[in-house]
Amino acid sequence: MFILLMIQKYFPQFLLTIACCTGLVFLFRKFRPSDEQKQRKNAQFKEKLKMNKGREENLTDEIDDKDMQDMEEDFAPSLPENLAHIPFKFTKNSHSEMIKRSGEFYELMNKRRSVRFFSKDPVPEEVIRNIIKTAGTSPSGAHTEPWTFVVIKDPQMKQQVREVIEEEEYFNYNKRMSKQWVADLKPLKTTWEKKYLTEAPYLILVFKQLYSFNEDGTRKMHYYNEISVAIATGMLITAIHNAGLSTVTTSPLQCGIRLRSILERPPQERLVLLFPVGFPADDCTVPDLERKPLKDICVEI
Amino acid sequence: MFILLMIQKYFPQFLLTIACCTGLVFLFRKFRPSDEQKQRKNAQFKEKLKMNKGREENLTDEIDDKDMQDMEEDFAPSLPENLAHIPFKFTKNSHSEMIKRSGEFYELMNKRRSVRFFSKDPVPEEVIRNIIKTAGTSPSGAHTEPWTFVVIKDPQMKQQVREVIEEEEYFNYNKRMSKQWVADLKPLKTTWEKKYLTEAPYLILVFKQLYSFNEDGTRKMHYYNEISVAIATGMLITAIHNAGLSTVTTSPLQCGIRLRSILERPPQERLVLLFPVGFPADDCTVPDLERKPLKDICVEI
Repeated sequence: MFILLMIQKYFPQFLLTIACCTGLVFLFRKFRPSDEQKQRKNAQFKEKLKMNKGREENLTDEIDDKDMQDMEEDFAPSLPENLAHIPFKFTKNSHSEMIKRSGEFYELMNKRRSVRFFSKDPVPEEVIRNIIKTAGTSPSGAHTEPWTFVVIKDPQMKQQVREVIEEEEYFNYNKRMSKQWVADLKPLKTTWEKKYLTEAPYLILVFKQLYSFNEDGTRKMHYYNEISVAIATGMLITAIHNAGLSTVTTSPLQCGIRLRSILERPPQERLVLLFPVGFPADDCTVPDLERKPLKDICVEI
Repeated sequence: MFILLMIQKYFPQFLLTIACCTGLVFLFRKFRPSDEQKQRKNAQFKEKLKMNKGREENLTDEIDDKDMQDMEEDFAPSLPENLAHIPFKFTKNSHSEMIKRSGEFYELMNKRRSVRFFSKDPVPEEVIRNIIKTAGTSPSGAHTEPWTFVVIKDPQMKQQVREVIEEEEYFNYNKRMSKQWVADLKPLKTTWEKKYLTEAPYLILVFKQLYSFNEDGTRKMHYYNEISVAIATGMLITAIHNAGLSTVTTSPLQCGIRLRSILERPPQERLVLLFPVGFPADDCTVPDLERKPLKDICVEI
């Protein structure tokens, strides 16, 4: 009875309470930023930071992973469905020949060092082309060969590339990289300054392709494109050293979009690594490092 | 005046309204799942799906990226700060010698094909060791050498690995991979069945290490570990082919944690790629593929 009386007395106020609550909850939900919104805000802020450095080009990638998923419906097969399979011709070496060859190859490769000081001595173009052809024999996911090697010989273009990289690397070393990372690189004496980018006779920039186009304009999906490109790069470094040249493996952090724009590469390509290639300078030094012995990198079962 | 009267009359109800609203908003916030919670729920659901397949071991990685960030404070430098830099000794080849060597190396590497049918003919262990030593000469971020090569010769272990991979691959081909991907692999005639895992005399499993330990127990951060391992793998494939052996590059999807557990590798290691190594079977076939010509993979500036 008492409860009924209470309800009768306060019913209008009760309704008002419910209405207010609903309204407030609605407002709160609307204005509470979701994690996604927060991320977007962070990204926008970072973008602003970059823009403030006086750049004019747009630094966001035109194609992101979400777009790739949306596009998947449009992709066409990359190989003919009735692809022939043919006998594989193979000449077998003797065991002793294999032991000799593999041992000599190890000795040769073990002489390789990452070189950061180059002479300006010229290198025949044919050697560079053979090196890139060798990298192009690398395996790739579903045989998509998802790589573009941009070879820069032109001094003005090398200068332009150096300017972009040094500007970003200055920012990397001072802002973007963790203290630990900067400390870990200190013994190698690397800094934001990259003289080798104009001293080496060639720069090879390795791009991965997210997809490519078939002749009829349909898209070909490039599976495992990053890892395929990195494996091909292992062959590239091997070929550079085997030819009698030197290089250093570099990953210009945050430079990809600007360099892609300068080099006029399409939006589905992404810079993975950059290699200066040439002869070491006469006074070239290298850090006094050793490699791990076999027992520390290999487990036999 | 009217307003004041109203306030006087309804003040207790007004207070009640505010209290209710606050309470309700608080409850709503508490029970509204954040994006992060949603992701965790999705992951838990996926985990359940996996568990239902009758597996007993725990399939979640013990260390994730978040843990790595939390740990960063504990990491110690990986190289001595006062590392000496020494002159680099280098013998220069003539241009004609370089053209010859690079051309011959391309011809050799261009004969390589991915092989999926192996003979059971034995291969000297020394050759396998030379191949892995060669891969170990690869460059790596801050010289961290973030790789472990697990070589399996034992037939029972190969059988165990095959069982895990075929079980997961069956699931991959039928559930996890997109229709487009399965269609793209069809011309290569790959299926969930992997006979080569027991036929080839050796399996080489390549693990990346997220970090390692210094002698004093502090952690050494492994920068760019995945790309460094992939580059080393490019050298591994080159060395396998150069020795006169064959392989195929495989990435056993979703098998990493189970294989790591069987092989008793530590939680900071992750399986990247797996290579069966040996001689091709006498009746080995390969898909009739061609490689892109230089002009399609290289841009000269």
